Amino acid sequence: MFKTSILVRFCDLDPAGIAYYPNLVNFLHVAFEDFFAGHVGRPYPEVFREGVGFPTVKVEMEYLAPVHYGDKVEVSVVVEKVGRSSVSFRYEGRVADKPVFRARNTAVVVDMRTFKPMPVPEPLRERFLAASVENAVDA
Amino acid sequence: MFKTSILVRFCDLDPAGIAYYPNLVNFLHVAFEDFFAGHVGRPYPEVFREGVGFPTVKVEMEYLAPVHYGDKVEVSVVVEKVGRSSVSFRYEGRVADKPVFRARNTAVVVDMRTFKPMPVPEPLRERFLAASVENAVDA
Amino acid sequence: MFKTSILVRFCDLDPAGIAYYPNLVNFLHVAFEDFFAGHVGRPYPEVFREGVGFPTVKVEMEYLAPVHYGDKVEVSVVVEKVGRSSVSFRYEGRVADKPVFRARNTAVVVDMRTFKPMPVPEPLRERFLAASVENAVDA
Amino acid sequence: MFKTSILVRFCDLDPAGIAYYPNLVNFLHVAFEDFFAGHVGRPYPEVFREGVGFPTVKVEMEYLAPVHYGDKVEVSVVVEKVGRSSVSFRYEGRVADKPVFRARNTAVVVDMRTFKPMPVPEPLRERFLAASVENAVDA
Repeated sequence: MFKTSILVRFCDLDPAGIAYYPNLVNFLHVAFEDFFAGHVGRPYPEVFREGVGFPTVKVEMEYLAPVHYGDKVEVSVVVEKVGRSSVSFRYEGRVADKPVFRARNTAVVVDMRTFKPMPVPEPLRERFLAASVENAVDA
Repeated sequence: MFKTSILVRFCDLDPAGIAYYPNLVNFLHVAFEDFFAGHVGRPYPEVFREGVGFPTVKVEMEYLAPVHYGDKVEVSVVVEKVGRSSVSFRYEGRVADKPVFRARNTAVVVDMRTFKPMPVPEPLRERFLAASVENAVDA
Repeated sequence: MFKTSILVRFCDLDPAGIAYYPNLVNFLHVAFEDFFAGHVGRPYPEVFREGVGFPTVKVEMEYLAPVHYGDKVEVSVVVEKVGRSSVSFRYEGRVADKPVFRARNTAVVVDMRTFKPMPVPEPLRERFLAASVENAVDA
Repeated sequence: MFKTSILVRFCDLDPAGIAYYPNLVNFLHVAFEDFFAGHVGRPYPEVFREGVGFPTVKVEMEYLAPVHYGDKVEVSVVVEKVGRSSVSFRYEGRVADKPVFRARNTAVVVDMRTFKPMPVPEPLRERFLAASVENAVDA
């Protein structure tokens, strides 16, 4: 299962001293970017510049415990479903092995020139499937 | 039904020129703040400073259409459920009367000194109930 | 002198409960946007979409007093200098008439298609000059 | 000279596809945090939690070249001056060895319980001086 580590920065915090929840939604995108670099094998900035974008159409996120300044959040990324022109991801964040959030995100694959959905490009689809739930039993 | 208008700023945008989805999650909080000032009758900064916080424990959000720079997003806020020490809100964002997002957010009411759940303070509970779904049929 | 009012939101705060300084730099851009809508007479989103951008090349900012949650920051905008393809702005933020920040920002006018500097479009230049220091003695 | 590397993320970008300038101001704080962990020898979150804060009172920043998605910005941190209860830092950001920004930041050291200035704690002062300009000739 793909995992990446995200350090909680000053800019992520709210006045209660914990990570502000929309900033933790951004952590999902950071993990998505790391997933491209580390698992898909192509940096997302490169894919994006070539005109393939992944705008989110749905996100669900549960916050299980407060995340503090300086925490290293280990985020796991699993592909739940690959559709014709969409992908669903599941994310789990842990601090010191304790779950702090769980999330599911569905993104549509779009041609950035037209902003219309396009089929998931084959090489990406293959890498997504390799990160799917059934291939993540080693979780 | 309580409604507020949020202007899409430069800082909200992504490189595709549309609002970045975690920034639209922040719009929910902005609407929540406006709901306190405009409906509850007590500015949230004041409530927060007195030690009552509303950390989000769950958020679900659907993005129905891209939101562009300069758009005025009209956000409606409805209270779905008031529990002993939690509140669920439903939000809908519209641009030129077309829905652009729908969301549900559940927050726990906590004593900011201890970060432990506390009962929803009575005066707030009353105002929350006045904004509940059944009282929002004029939607 | 052009003035606009910016409300300090939850998302602007740091764990000390005051506005995080890069977020106050963003306030300069918000004021710049309001200056376009309110003084220049053309919303900046429209100008930007037509291909004229104002990337900042230099910013200087002094933080004179902490800015708190719920503060209404009244920001004044003065044009200091209009060059061939650049503009310098001066900003001052006040809360309850007490200065909280002062800033100067120099932006280059660029053609967004090429990202090359272009002359300040005439109608904009005229409106910028009308907001210049000498025309702002009513400060 | 202390250096750290910061990856430009999707959330840092503006609709022109380059890093939004207030987000690059945030890069200064990220570098400041890494400087604590990597040079001072004490993670800033720890120092902050013990009640020592470094609110910025002045920042100056020049943007020399656009910073793009996926760029690795190598940021150098030099201490310019250590006062009784203030510190001035100089930062330079480079991408592929080309300067993209230069900045100077002055922070006051405050006791977070009172938000009043306090003397720079001795162990920190010593480490700051070790990162001062004269000790950074290997730049």
